[in-house]
Amino acid sequence: MEIKPNFDKRGGLLPVITQDEKSREVLMLAYANQEAYELTLKTGIATYYSTSRNEIWVKGKTSGDTQIIKEILIDCDEDALLYKVIQQGKGACHTGERTCFYRSIKIN
Amino acid sequence: MEIKPNFDKRGGLLPVITQDEKSREVLMLAYANQEAYELTLKTGIATYYSTSRNEIWVKGKTSGDTQIIKEILIDCDEDALLYKVIQQGKGACHTGERTCFYRSIKIN
Repeated sequence: MEIKPNFDKRGGLLPVITQDEKSREVLMLAYANQEAYELTLKTGIATYYSTSRNEIWVKGKTSGDTQIIKEILIDCDEDALLYKVIQQGKGACHTGERTCFYRSIKIN
Repeated sequence: MEIKPNFDKRGGLLPVITQDEKSREVLMLAYANQEAYELTLKTGIATYYSTSRNEIWVKGKTSGDTQIIKEILIDCDEDALLYKVIQQGKGACHTGERTCFYRSIKIN
């Protein structure tokens, strides 16, 4: 049986973890609906659903910071995805940082 | 100003990416509400909110597969977290696999 994400879960918006294929750095957390997922498969370019703009979001379409898909992994519950990518341009984050997770929380 | 996750977003349930501190393998994707997050900070053990059981979930409490927190990172939008952990026991996944992302989707 083919493994597929279950878009009947999580209101049809599944979290996607994007990880640098080589360094294994986690670059960002975004969301995909079925259309965004299918566009990702079809084009080989990470495509998300923007929950702020409520539209399909081809990451890097305007900035050039596209993400080339190398591997797609799915979790045991079929409601989360992991995209292993080659990050183009300066990085994944709109702030100019390479990763969106550039800040550490102080723990004791 | 202290950096804090914004639990006013995402209906109060923020996605948490859990990553092996050393190997950088992504182990799982789970969720935290404010209580789970504060318990994680206080105890140093990854604690989530189970969206299937609707309760606080101290990962590994019964199985022994606890996750010791080494670092907590927050994303640019303050609505996603990355826990870098030392995974105890056999792994993160209830299937017995080390990571919940143990299956690859066929791409062309």
